[in-house]
Parts: sequence; structure tokens; C-alpha cells
Amino acid sequence: MKRAELVSHINERRSFLCVGLDPELSKLPPHLLDSEDPVFEFNRQIIDATRDYCVAYKPNLAFFEALGPAGWISFERTVKHIGKSHFIIADAKRGDIGNTSRMYADAFFNRYGCDAVTIAPYMGEDSLSPFLETPEKWAVVLALTSNKGSNDFQRLHLTAGEPLWETVLSETARWGSPENMMYVVGATHPDAFARVRELVPDHFLLVPGVGAQGGDLAATCRYGLNRDIGLLINSSRGIIYADNSVHFAEKAAEEARKLQLEMASFLG
Amino acid sequence: MKRAELVSHINERRSFLCVGLDPELSKLPPHLLDSEDPVFEFNRQIIDATRDYCVAYKPNLAFFEALGPAGWISFERTVKHIGKSHFIIADAKRGDIGNTSRMYADAFFNRYGCDAVTIAPYMGEDSLSPFLETPEKWAVVLALTSNKGSNDFQRLHLTAGEPLWETVLSETARWGSPENMMYVVGATHPDAFARVRELVPDHFLLVPGVGAQGGDLAATCRYGLNRDIGLLINSSRGIIYADNSVHFAEKAAEEARKLQLEMASFLG
Repeated sequence: MKRAELVSHINERRSFLCVGLDPELSKLPPHLLDSEDPVFEFNRQIIDATRDYCVAYKPNLAFFEALGPAGWISFERTVKHIGKSHFIIADAKRGDIGNTSRMYADAFFNRYGCDAVTIAPYMGEDSLSPFLETPEKWAVVLALTSNKGSNDFQRLHLTAGEPLWETVLSETARWGSPENMMYVVGATHPDAFARVRELVPDHFLLVPGVGAQGGDLAATCRYGLNRDIGLLINSSRGIIYADNSVHFAEKAAEEARKLQLEMASFLG
Repeated sequence: MKRAELVSHINERRSFLCVGLDPELSKLPPHLLDSEDPVFEFNRQIIDATRDYCVAYKPNLAFFEALGPAGWISFERTVKHIGKSHFIIADAKRGDIGNTSRMYADAFFNRYGCDAVTIAPYMGEDSLSPFLETPEKWAVVLALTSNKGSNDFQRLHLTAGEPLWETVLSETARWGSPENMMYVVGATHPDAFARVRELVPDHFLLVPGVGAQGGDLAATCRYGLNRDIGLLINSSRGIIYADNSVHFAEKAAEEARKLQLEMASFLG
């Protein structure tokens, strides 16, 4: 998907919500477990109930991979069911030497048809660049993640004076453009957004950590929004596991709708 | 696999060779393409031809993932065919927030039965620790990788005085033990091995980059060997793609045997 198309979806739907799909068998509504492909059936109903309120979906690959080869069939069907109307981020945290990253890019972009893959930057430029070579496909680079472990290395200061995550931002920004790269910045670091926007004023940011992890939507928007909106706010468990009964999809729609309305208020 | 068992395999076979399995359809011997599962058939013949000369296999997940759900079936069959006699490293470069890393660990350790998974450390402790919780299962943490991009972030100096990769080594070493953690250190950085051994004298190191990438086995051994050997030297393309004819497996065995003999000379 082109950046302009993503921006126009945001403006039409008045939403910059990304719904995270983390389908865990033990958490699915029990009545779905009898269906032929429970994970796909769960995703399908969540997607149909929430698609008017969001612009992106983020399937988390670990939850599919844990189900063995069958999980990848559920993933394939899920991506197909989402279709072209939404930006699809394979949350896979990949990144390896060049010839290997090329295989990962081929899998997610060409075989499965995702728009973007999340990338761990530790291995540097040749691990990232294969994800930047396909038109309308994106790398979403981990900059400052939402988890506690983000303090272990990402926030360490370099002799150049700034923390590692800032160098990751400014260095990787030179390898791509705001048309094929985004950054993960956790809402659990509200103090960081002003600095992020100094370094990458134009890039989209994928923001986890609002809700259960304690991040605040208003604080994120205050510094994070740019002239093209420039934010995709992710919510996973708060939407998809809002309810465990036969009404789970309606309840998911309700939670997505609440976030959409809150987002609309920031769009002016 | 327990560390003691790995060490005894090394001493019995007089080899610390790890054979990397990167099965790319376009590189397979053409006569295999008619078989029902060409990737498994290729791996099976490579494994049968090389198993006396190595102690570990390292399937590279990108090459299976690129084949879609069927690729995961080939992976599953490959791991089963290797069996319990060799240490199996899922080269997957995973790492995510805690609940997600837990799903990856479950997939590779419990579902597929691998001994180890390679881990990108950027997301810190809670992304790594789920891989350290299963007895006899291992995390192989990226420290200083063999590729050009290792210079982009890993070698940057921190205000504490040392480069990032050294901090990754010494910090993560506190989270596990030499019984459940190894480190990736590329043979393309021969100058680094003496420092690695000061920081982690007892850990096993998984060493890519010997051969095609220019790393030198003798230089690696000079500083890398410890009292339990402590090295797994990986070779992928140099062995598995040594020949493209019906004799590919014999040729792979020949290349593995050459490395085994060279390794035996360092075991004294």
C-alpha cells in the first residue's frame, strides 16, 4: 500500500487504529474451538466487526507459528480475508544477513501479500535493506519498544552522546524513506515522542503499549501527530479479548469504536 | 541437549562442526525437484552424508518460511530426521515482548523439538528470558555477527567505554548460564575473540563466517577454544552447495570431512 492511500484511509475512517491479532487457542471463545480452523474463524469475526474502525491489522506471527504448519494456513487465510482495504503488518521481528532477509521479505511480501514487516535492527543495514526494495512494501523498524527490556540496550548512551535508539532512528532513516519505513515507538515512553519527531518528522510511527501496558493516547498524540497524521496506534488484547462469549466480536467492535472516536477527536 | 552431552559428541567425533541448512529451491540439484518434498529430500541426503562429521545442524528458518505452510512441514520432517544425536539450532533470530517470545520458545522447543533458537537481543531481558526456562534448551544470542551491518550498531561505543556488543555479552550472560546460552560471534572479526573469552570464558560460541565470508578457522580457534572446546563452527553454503549434480551428497560429505579433519588437528 502506498503512503498516500494509507493517509486517505485514515482521513476517511477518522481513525489511525491498528488492531493486533494475537490469537491464542487458550484464550479463544470456547464455542469457536469446534470449528475447522478456530484461529481463522476468530480472526475472521474480529476483522468483520472492526474493519470500519481501523486502518491496519497486525497479525503477530508467534501466535500462528506456535500452531505448527496449520498456523501458517490460518495466517494465510487471515491476510487474504483482510484484503486490500487495510494496511497489513506482519509482526515478525525479522532481520538477518542479506540473503536471508531477502527470503523473509519474499515470504511476507510476495507469498502472503502483507504490506509491512517489523524488523529488529541489531544486524544493521544489509539486514534491513532487502525489506526496502519492493514498491509499496514497508519495513517497520524497532526503535524504542514498549516493554521493560527496552531499558537494557535501547536506552544506553553512546559516546556520540545520544541513546542507542536515537542512533538507530537517525541512521536507518538514511537507508529508506518515509514512503517505505516506519518505526516502532512504545506509548510507554511518552517523554520520547518529542525527540522522535525532531529526528523523523515525516515517518509513520507504529505505537504499541496504549491500554493494558499503561501508555496514554492523548500524550502520544500531542507530540506524535504530524501533518499526515503519522501514527498507527496498536491495540491487541484490549480489543480482541474484551469478551470471551458468543458476543466477543460485538464487544471487540465496541472497544475499537471507542478508540476510533477518541482518535477522531485528535484529528480536528 | 545437555552441555555435557554436546561436549562428549565433540570429543567422540573429533569435530565441532555445525552444518547450516539453507535449502533454496533454485539452488537444489535439479534431479530432486521431482520428488514429493524436494527440500526435505535434499536435507535428508545432506544429513545422512554429513552426520558423522558434525555435532550440530542449523536450519535457517527463512528458507523454509519462504515456501509457505509446506515449508514448515519440510522443516518438521528435517528436525525429526536429524534426531537426538545432534544439537539442533533453529536459526530464526527471534525476540519479542515476553508473552510473544514465550510462544516462539514453545514453537521451536516443544512443537518442533529443536535444542536452541538464535535470538536478537535488541528488546532486552524479557524478550530473551522465555528461551531460558526449559531444561536442556538454549538461547543463542547475537553478539557480534559476521555481516557488514555488524558495524552499524554492534560496534558503536557506549559512554561506559565499550562497544555495544560487549555490553550485550556481559549483560545477557547474567540472565542465563553457560548451560543454556551461547553467543553468535562471526569469524569475520578475528580480533574480537580474545575479548569475547575475557567476557564469557565458559560459554559456547556459534561461529558463522568461516569460508565464503572470509573468516579463518585457525585464527578463530587460537582465541576461541576453551577447556570444553566451546566452539561450534558453522558452514552452510560451502558444504550443502559444494555440488549440484546427483553426487551432491557425496561432495557435501567430502567438504564436511575436510573441516572435521582440520578441527581434529586443533583438538590435540
